[in-house]
Amino acid sequence: MSLSAKPLLICAPHPRTLDLIFSPAKRAILFDKYEVVEVEPEDFDQLPDETLGRARYIVGQPPLSLQTLQKMPELKCIMNVESNLFDNMPYEYLFQTGVHVVTTGAVFAQPVAEMGLAMALCLARNVIDADLDFRNGNELWGRDGNADARLISGANIGIIGFGDLGRSLARILSGFQAEISVFDPWLPPSMLEEQGVHPATLDEVLSNSDYLFVVASVTSENRGLLNAQSFAKMKRGSAFILLSRADIVDFNDLMAAVSSGHILAASDVFPDEPLAPDHPARKLKGFIRSAHRAGALDQAFLKMGDMVLEDMELMDQDLPPMRCKRAERETVSRMRSKPVLVN
Amino acid sequence: MSLSAKPLLICAPHPRTLDLIFSPAKRAILFDKYEVVEVEPEDFDQLPDETLGRARYIVGQPPLSLQTLQKMPELKCIMNVESNLFDNMPYEYLFQTGVHVVTTGAVFAQPVAEMGLAMALCLARNVIDADLDFRNGNELWGRDGNADARLISGANIGIIGFGDLGRSLARILSGFQAEISVFDPWLPPSMLEEQGVHPATLDEVLSNSDYLFVVASVTSENRGLLNAQSFAKMKRGSAFILLSRADIVDFNDLMAAVSSGHILAASDVFPDEPLAPDHPARKLKGFIRSAHRAGALDQAFLKMGDMVLEDMELMDQDLPPMRCKRAERETVSRMRSKPVLVN
Amino acid sequence: MSLSAKPLLICAPHPRTLDLIFSPAKRAILFDKYEVVEVEPEDFDQLPDETLGRARYIVGQPPLSLQTLQKMPELKCIMNVESNLFDNMPYEYLFQTGVHVVTTGAVFAQPVAEMGLAMALCLARNVIDADLDFRNGNELWGRDGNADARLISGANIGIIGFGDLGRSLARILSGFQAEISVFDPWLPPSMLEEQGVHPATLDEVLSNSDYLFVVASVTSENRGLLNAQSFAKMKRGSAFILLSRADIVDFNDLMAAVSSGHILAASDVFPDEPLAPDHPARKLKGFIRSAHRAGALDQAFLKMGDMVLEDMELMDQDLPPMRCKRAERETVSRMRSKPVLVN
Amino acid sequence: MSLSAKPLLICAPHPRTLDLIFSPAKRAILFDKYEVVEVEPEDFDQLPDETLGRARYIVGQPPLSLQTLQKMPELKCIMNVESNLFDNMPYEYLFQTGVHVVTTGAVFAQPVAEMGLAMALCLARNVIDADLDFRNGNELWGRDGNADARLISGANIGIIGFGDLGRSLARILSGFQAEISVFDPWLPPSMLEEQGVHPATLDEVLSNSDYLFVVASVTSENRGLLNAQSFAKMKRGSAFILLSRADIVDFNDLMAAVSSGHILAASDVFPDEPLAPDHPARKLKGFIRSAHRAGALDQAFLKMGDMVLEDMELMDQDLPPMRCKRAERETVSRMRSKPVLVN
Repeated sequence: MSLSAKPLLICAPHPRTLDLIFSPAKRAILFDKYEVVEVEPEDFDQLPDETLGRARYIVGQPPLSLQTLQKMPELKCIMNVESNLFDNMPYEYLFQTGVHVVTTGAVFAQPVAEMGLAMALCLARNVIDADLDFRNGNELWGRDGNADARLISGANIGIIGFGDLGRSLARILSGFQAEISVFDPWLPPSMLEEQGVHPATLDEVLSNSDYLFVVASVTSENRGLLNAQSFAKMKRGSAFILLSRADIVDFNDLMAAVSSGHILAASDVFPDEPLAPDHPARKLKGFIRSAHRAGALDQAFLKMGDMVLEDMELMDQDLPPMRCKRAERETVSRMRSKPVLVN
Repeated sequence: MSLSAKPLLICAPHPRTLDLIFSPAKRAILFDKYEVVEVEPEDFDQLPDETLGRARYIVGQPPLSLQTLQKMPELKCIMNVESNLFDNMPYEYLFQTGVHVVTTGAVFAQPVAEMGLAMALCLARNVIDADLDFRNGNELWGRDGNADARLISGANIGIIGFGDLGRSLARILSGFQAEISVFDPWLPPSMLEEQGVHPATLDEVLSNSDYLFVVASVTSENRGLLNAQSFAKMKRGSAFILLSRADIVDFNDLMAAVSSGHILAASDVFPDEPLAPDHPARKLKGFIRSAHRAGALDQAFLKMGDMVLEDMELMDQDLPPMRCKRAERETVSRMRSKPVLVN
Repeated sequence: MSLSAKPLLICAPHPRTLDLIFSPAKRAILFDKYEVVEVEPEDFDQLPDETLGRARYIVGQPPLSLQTLQKMPELKCIMNVESNLFDNMPYEYLFQTGVHVVTTGAVFAQPVAEMGLAMALCLARNVIDADLDFRNGNELWGRDGNADARLISGANIGIIGFGDLGRSLARILSGFQAEISVFDPWLPPSMLEEQGVHPATLDEVLSNSDYLFVVASVTSENRGLLNAQSFAKMKRGSAFILLSRADIVDFNDLMAAVSSGHILAASDVFPDEPLAPDHPARKLKGFIRSAHRAGALDQAFLKMGDMVLEDMELMDQDLPPMRCKRAERETVSRMRSKPVLVN
Repeated sequence: MSLSAKPLLICAPHPRTLDLIFSPAKRAILFDKYEVVEVEPEDFDQLPDETLGRARYIVGQPPLSLQTLQKMPELKCIMNVESNLFDNMPYEYLFQTGVHVVTTGAVFAQPVAEMGLAMALCLARNVIDADLDFRNGNELWGRDGNADARLISGANIGIIGFGDLGRSLARILSGFQAEISVFDPWLPPSMLEEQGVHPATLDEVLSNSDYLFVVASVTSENRGLLNAQSFAKMKRGSAFILLSRADIVDFNDLMAAVSSGHILAASDVFPDEPLAPDHPARKLKGFIRSAHRAGALDQAFLKMGDMVLEDMELMDQDLPPMRCKRAERETVSRMRSKPVLVN
């Protein structure tokens, strides 16, 4: 195949890099199958018209003006590897003309689900403080060390949000014979039932769950959704595990609910990242902290490249992309997750 | 039913107590269905012949002489709620006469399996030290904090021993799409395959596993089974999780393998319990400590009473006990687990 | 709510009827929540402009001209309950303007999958002819009657096409510990792997399968895909089960492969329906016939109404439909399944 | 190893043969590891004392007198490959002396479960008569042919008896999202719950099941257990599938319940086998007949040899047999299944 016959792909994957998201072997395939033009996102508009005119794919989420997009008649898909959708391109134009906008956030589902289960187990069994006590010679043996210990097996699990991450969580919990209830107002109840979970209202998951996982994306509608009243509805001693974005909860209310001893909690996300050195969450008892580490595994980033390659292979055959998640006309403007600043 | 018509049951459940193993509701059922004689184990031999002559069940594991047993023609079952088998009764006589000896150790399978998974996840994701760093203001954010992080999903899991605990572990791992290999010389390979795990040799589970769980009981044959040579066969960076009894490993060799950085490890059991205040395991990096807490949950102890009631109901109908695990002629004398001193 | 405030829905569900697809209870909900205008498909264009102008949904697949659609600015979705996509409306205009076109064919997935498994089991165990022999007094007892009998457990299963039906089939086969390989050129391999099946080429599923299920929709590309050469690649004695549309196979070649004894087969679909009275398929040995009955259960039709109601509830909140399957710009024009003439 | 050093095994596998139960490869292993003495069951007592004195295993179920057994001090296990337990040996003596009596009936669990599911699906979808109608040109197309068709997915399943076969059935049904209730008075309820099925009374499984499978062995207590009153409790139109032994039902009552149209039924077993040529079951509508073919697959018989080899390997190491099922003191005398006359 002559170089010019290869489909053209423009790469602007910031904050990712090609090396972060493609293994050497997959990177070789990428360069073998495609003519790859790399550009900084802020320089995208300055690409030559000839390049824009031939480009079939954009990997990344550079700011795109309508004017630029109108120069790109061959464009089939914008593959957003940051995975949050920024308001930096005319989505309506893209939907009209049939250019897909897809995200690769599903790569984080499995690692975040595993971290969520780790947190739930650590809260249930007091794993962290028991290890610290053991280091310090203060450990309690056997049953004496299990005052509030309980199982996940047979417990009531609640999940708020049932996208890729919620489904991954349900899957790794499938061996526990637990009852899983899900609140997700964007999904019809029968689809939840088909996946073996119980559809529920927000109040039901709050008041019935022994372990409540929050994995919903932040939208214009659910910012601050969970506050003091919500935590008050939770069962005494139940565990609240926050895995998606801090904006979905009132963080001060969460800390108050934990410090009062009403609930236990764990969080991978914080109102400010990095968090202030003197933030009270750092010393809060009954709380497990993770510094936005749940998803950011190299194994996950490398799956981004795999997904991009698989979907481009479909689109090269004039098929729709199936592997990545497509932005939707109805919801693209509701998304409010903050961008990540570091990988 | 007149009181004398109730089957007689002698209770000597030390170190358990009736209140530990029976919920109030189940305890009421016990006393309603059976004439219950409570005795200290060391006083068992002094029970009146009339009592011994009518006893259908013993709950506990008191020392029993042949002479005493010969006074118990109605005895159907000794229900050992300590769950290790001591060498304090003439088992051969019991087997000959068809008196069952059963143990309730299966109640610990689920809690220990969950603790084992908690340990594996904590090792995989550095959950404990990351929380400590966060408390101390030294946390690393996102990918920077995930230097050696890895998933359980898709990993190679090894399990040594596939009794109740091994099966519970395999079940709670069933949602992870991991390959599970099992070494258990007491089970035929096809039974392992039927349960969806791969039969393997000891060398195979040592050298192939990313996470290796040891859940085998201690026997006369496997004491010290795992030593420096064994750990050397493990993959660099793999995780060793000890959940059954410390005697199955050379503990000094285990600590050396961890302190050298070759493997990570976690253990619920120790060569001495409690462990000496200055024991180096207390400060060992790459090691998670649990003070024999994995199984000793109140939820678990209460299941002992449930199991005892269910099996007595079967035996009352001249059916064999199915819920508890029966001691076997061939293996009873090979068991070498130390008794527990505390619950 | 005043009647005029209800969203307007135009019903033209031919060949379905409202009573076929809505239970009385669901029909009551439909009429309570929506202003329902019923119309014959051929009269759609004659609806008053006022009605068209207010309509939010169309249930059915009436012929729609661009002119008519342009009178429908409130239209959000065309809910095709026939479930094949006819070339009777300007899809491109619908995609541009963001009107969804969705189908409810997923309701047939479960019933067709169960019929497919019934056929596979009947072929594997010669259930039908053995019952006939028994009626006639010619039965063979025990092993004598099991000359070619074999299991599904542990067999190699092939599936061509992995949409709703393929996934249902994989799910009901999940308890058989069988290896399932799938050929579906419209799906990336990693999505198949995530669902626990092996991605495979067409040749691989043909040559390796003990049971091969064809559940792909007919497209412009796969008409006549399976022919004499294909069947020759299959293992002697393997079973071919056709569940989607007859056009995907060369039916004469299929019959030849069965009558030669090379393979066994079953089919729910035929080149002409009804089939000619003297068609040789009627008497073919080694062949099981089903008169396009696999999906057409009342239970299935009633789920159509459930799906329509669930998705309208989402769209009423300006959310995208999730329950029904959306037509895709890239593939809508490739679909070639014949319409059904009867339910 | 010198021939005399090999453990001695006496083979009297009637009605099986060595070639039926051992593949050539496994047979070679058998003869390599063991000194094999083949004998007709009726000649067993005439074996030389020296042979009896050295024999470690008997494969088969020959009549054994106490006198003969007393000459066999090395005997560890009688491996009954017929799999019903006859009253032709002093079991009590065997239990006292610790000689295991094991059966290999588990090999039939998978094939019988698959046949049971085949029958259930054929009854649910009228597969057999619909194929006959199609052969004869009387088929009804689509929904017209599905008057009483229904799904297994989502149905209430009942199972009577939860040994190997019941568990196999539950496993192959696991993908159907059906509720499974089990009546088995020999098992404690919590063991059923652990396996994901609901413990139930006989009346509950009769009155609630859409599909009721009978897989219990015949015992002295359950002969004729299911009769006219039982069938009257079943839901109109529900399906009764008999897979174990005919003696557990009153067969005339079963036929009456079917011919009245109250229930549908299928059976693999009959009061007399072979069944009289003019027996009314042959022409009964709503009934599927299988001539005791459900288990008797070559694949199953060959697993018998595998199981025997695996358990002998354990016993050769002084471990208990785990693969085959052990006869139990309490229940051996209650078993009443008729012997099989043919394989």
